[in-house]
Amino acid sequence: MRILFLGDLVGRSGRQAAIDIIPKLRQRWNLDLLVVNGENAAGGFGINESIYDEVIAAGADAVTLGNHAFDQRETLVFIERAERLIRPANFPSGTPGRGSALIEIRDGRRVLVMNLMGRIYMDALDDPFARAEAELSACPLGVACDAIVIDFHAEATSEKQAFGHFVDGRASLVVGTHTHVPTADHQILNGGTAYLSDAGMCGDYDSVLGMEKEEPISRFVRKIPSSRFEPAMAAATVCGFAVETDDATGLAVKISPVRIGARLEPVEPAFW
Amino acid sequence: MRILFLGDLVGRSGRQAAIDIIPKLRQRWNLDLLVVNGENAAGGFGINESIYDEVIAAGADAVTLGNHAFDQRETLVFIERAERLIRPANFPSGTPGRGSALIEIRDGRRVLVMNLMGRIYMDALDDPFARAEAELSACPLGVACDAIVIDFHAEATSEKQAFGHFVDGRASLVVGTHTHVPTADHQILNGGTAYLSDAGMCGDYDSVLGMEKEEPISRFVRKIPSSRFEPAMAAATVCGFAVETDDATGLAVKISPVRIGARLEPVEPAFW
Amino acid sequence: MRILFLGDLVGRSGRQAAIDIIPKLRQRWNLDLLVVNGENAAGGFGINESIYDEVIAAGADAVTLGNHAFDQRETLVFIERAERLIRPANFPSGTPGRGSALIEIRDGRRVLVMNLMGRIYMDALDDPFARAEAELSACPLGVACDAIVIDFHAEATSEKQAFGHFVDGRASLVVGTHTHVPTADHQILNGGTAYLSDAGMCGDYDSVLGMEKEEPISRFVRKIPSSRFEPAMAAATVCGFAVETDDATGLAVKISPVRIGARLEPVEPAFW
Amino acid sequence: MRILFLGDLVGRSGRQAAIDIIPKLRQRWNLDLLVVNGENAAGGFGINESIYDEVIAAGADAVTLGNHAFDQRETLVFIERAERLIRPANFPSGTPGRGSALIEIRDGRRVLVMNLMGRIYMDALDDPFARAEAELSACPLGVACDAIVIDFHAEATSEKQAFGHFVDGRASLVVGTHTHVPTADHQILNGGTAYLSDAGMCGDYDSVLGMEKEEPISRFVRKIPSSRFEPAMAAATVCGFAVETDDATGLAVKISPVRIGARLEPVEPAFW
Ligand SMILES: [Fe+2]
Ligand SMILES: [Fe+2]
Ligand SMILES: [Fe+2]
Ligand SMILES: [Fe+2]
Ligand SMILES: [Fe+2]
Ligand SMILES: [Fe+2]
Ligand SMILES: [Fe+2]
Ligand SMILES: [Fe+2]
Repeated sequence: MRILFLGDLVGRSGRQAAIDIIPKLRQRWNLDLLVVNGENAAGGFGINESIYDEVIAAGADAVTLGNHAFDQRETLVFIERAERLIRPANFPSGTPGRGSALIEIRDGRRVLVMNLMGRIYMDALDDPFARAEAELSACPLGVACDAIVIDFHAEATSEKQAFGHFVDGRASLVVGTHTHVPTADHQILNGGTAYLSDAGMCGDYDSVLGMEKEEPISRFVRKIPSSRFEPAMAAATVCGFAVETDDATGLAVKISPVRIGARLEPVEPAFW
Repeated sequence: MRILFLGDLVGRSGRQAAIDIIPKLRQRWNLDLLVVNGENAAGGFGINESIYDEVIAAGADAVTLGNHAFDQRETLVFIERAERLIRPANFPSGTPGRGSALIEIRDGRRVLVMNLMGRIYMDALDDPFARAEAELSACPLGVACDAIVIDFHAEATSEKQAFGHFVDGRASLVVGTHTHVPTADHQILNGGTAYLSDAGMCGDYDSVLGMEKEEPISRFVRKIPSSRFEPAMAAATVCGFAVETDDATGLAVKISPVRIGARLEPVEPAFW
Repeated sequence: MRILFLGDLVGRSGRQAAIDIIPKLRQRWNLDLLVVNGENAAGGFGINESIYDEVIAAGADAVTLGNHAFDQRETLVFIERAERLIRPANFPSGTPGRGSALIEIRDGRRVLVMNLMGRIYMDALDDPFARAEAELSACPLGVACDAIVIDFHAEATSEKQAFGHFVDGRASLVVGTHTHVPTADHQILNGGTAYLSDAGMCGDYDSVLGMEKEEPISRFVRKIPSSRFEPAMAAATVCGFAVETDDATGLAVKISPVRIGARLEPVEPAFW
Repeated sequence: MRILFLGDLVGRSGRQAAIDIIPKLRQRWNLDLLVVNGENAAGGFGINESIYDEVIAAGADAVTLGNHAFDQRETLVFIERAERLIRPANFPSGTPGRGSALIEIRDGRRVLVMNLMGRIYMDALDDPFARAEAELSACPLGVACDAIVIDFHAEATSEKQAFGHFVDGRASLVVGTHTHVPTADHQILNGGTAYLSDAGMCGDYDSVLGMEKEEPISRFVRKIPSSRFEPAMAAATVCGFAVETDDATGLAVKISPVRIGARLEPVEPAFW
């Protein structure tokens, strides 16, 4: 199965770049599944229904979130009817929406897409390791589904790597999000799970995390806010992770980072 | 000028890999300057004098540090005579050792090598932005030195990027360390400073941050330590950042990540 | 019911002061229940079986813990047979020991003693609010037990106060521990639960948190450790919270802080 | 000299209670100096000029601040002309306003009032220990001034206590603020400095930190904001620290916590 994951869409620049390229990549690479992190899609903070609809219409199979999941108040409502919008599974029980979804792809196979949030240097949600354990037991790879994609939204590389090893052999891929910087540590772990510490954002990399850089720099120097953070608006680089799984096992066989457009060094999967 | 920076040497695996390859790379790429982060060289925690001597003897021009700078108690003493050992410049005034050094390379040109520590999610040292400002004013690029290399040892990508832009045009390169994961966001910023959020470690990437993975995973799951952290001992990947500067300006003209050996996707500068 | 809670015993000074005074206070005030936080009893870090036995022998009905619960490795073993030793209930499931205990007092009445850890600025355990909800539903005050004592071990006053209000009317008392500083905000909340943000420690208050002050001061100033933390050894102040409950409802009717000995302003319940 | 310090005024309830009682206490206790922390005076977030004027008109000699110093944007401007408004001295150099002020009291004697912010679990300002050292060297107690009052605005009790000992014998009093909970650990340290870890707030104690309690509780339970924080509006308790200094040395000779009104146990200095 051919899976593409794209990192956090940041503001209009990142969102539009992703929406433009998603249909092309689906076709060019003959993708089976495409998942996008959308936690910064609406002006940098959260997502709204029209953006969600647009991203799905462009060809995403699912949209994951993170600590900004509910920055837009309407998300608490529309998430219930947005069946492919997935917020961290380790929010407290009773939280609107879903933490994972079994997505049926075009040929009828099913993929479990899960979103989890780390807890190091982040708000203390429920235990993501225990939550993953429960989800994976309920829907084992190769038994109840054909692939498992986990977006592990976290700050600390220690927690991301530990989590990757924790589910190694039980998920098709674990990809980190949240730092908005693509990492170059992609590997297939010993058990067969594809791993990348961070997919990076889809956004303008002449920025601080996709935001206009003057205000963040000023806050570090002056320690007093001057204005709001605004998304940077120059051309975006689309960043992500491409994984091909073995149809028999659901585990990864080929992996590649993806970086297309603007400022970062471009890379595309050589194997598709 | 041809500059190579190598990220945190972790334990014997990373240290030995770096020591083995440093002389070869110096020669193969005809390097003018080679800087290595050594904060995890001694069993994962700090550095001692014999390791420092070994790294310098192998061909490093300078060794930078970070939050683990003084994990080995002897460092407080030998750092005073280790003229190429550079601890974060934003430790309180009076701290043993130096936060920057003007290194004379083989042809007589001089390079300012500086180490700074970020403060987001880290111990609160003095302001790294103010400290950099003072250092750069005292030793301006192209006037008092021919190149400036800054190892910005920090956790948060926001702080790293903001710092990069803050000194853009005033340093040859800013390279992050500390997360032990190489990032793929290398770019030459608008003002001419080469930037990479993290060089990654030199260490065994079948691990958690270069440490045997069982104990870190267990701590995330069980929340109780079982044993000490021990460096992982399988073959290391040597990770770093290669930068070629313009001799007239000291600013960057060519950049490439470096990853050699073992588990990560290999990459070397195409331009040398 | 007459309940006395004593805050974290710190090192030999605090431990000995508590052990000396516990039998006297039991008799003088005719106490029905005495609970002590013992997370720093063994040299400042954790507790061992002989200290636990000594504290129980002195007359404590239960010993609670906190983030230092398992600092002494033997605790993982002996906690299973130490029926009155209570570690935070929101450790992951499977953690040795118990997070609450139903203690039978001398006249046969039963008290639920619970220990929970906050998550703000502390390691991320399971949700203490959800855990309390589950425990209180399983053992409602006035139905399944005659009193409920909750030691909420936490750093942030916001979390402590929010927790107090969250269980108000459902517990006899909520007392904070961990900061090692007694607070003066004792009140009976609107629903009848006695509340104090922190009981303070039983220890030497010519110190930093009960530890010899030179090393902690030095670390703040120099940012480099010089030596280990050692408990301060001068005379201790015994600090705690005295609560009298209504026998019919199990809710609080009279409250007083307790501070006996050494450097702090002394106070004892006027109503006993 | 008779000095009264009042903790953070929170919202209209705390502000009005303080303004009402300040003239009475000045007269009743024949105070020489009255300092108030005003960081939460304007709806819980910062201070504006009219509130500052009102508090000074009521009889405060100085108003200190904290992490909320600049929540109201106008403060960046009017602080320059507000000679008795003191923001943390360890903001970066160039920050508007002043971090200390030499206040002349009615009989002509002079008191140095200083505000500092801790860094544990707070934004990383400059080193408060180094800053205090510089200020105290420039204006030594008993030489350049008759008393020194330090409002140490911080979260962690370790940092507060370490700071108290650090300046012991060099300041008349160190009083903590920020947790909004009065502590009961007042003592005169060995060198003669009066110390209290936290003055507590002037505000409604049927609340979470002086704010309406529903929203904070909901955020702990649900992990998603529902609405803004609003100050609680029931009657306030005025909390503070009363210190009498020796006219010859400027060091403390008598101390007492102060708690007047509403829900907390009342206490006033017995010695005035
Ligand atoms: Fe994001
Ligand atoms: Fe995020
Ligand atoms: Fe490191
Ligand atoms: Fe580090
Ligand atoms: Fe403790
Ligand atoms: Fe504790
Ligand atoms: Fe405050
Ligand atoms: Fe504050």
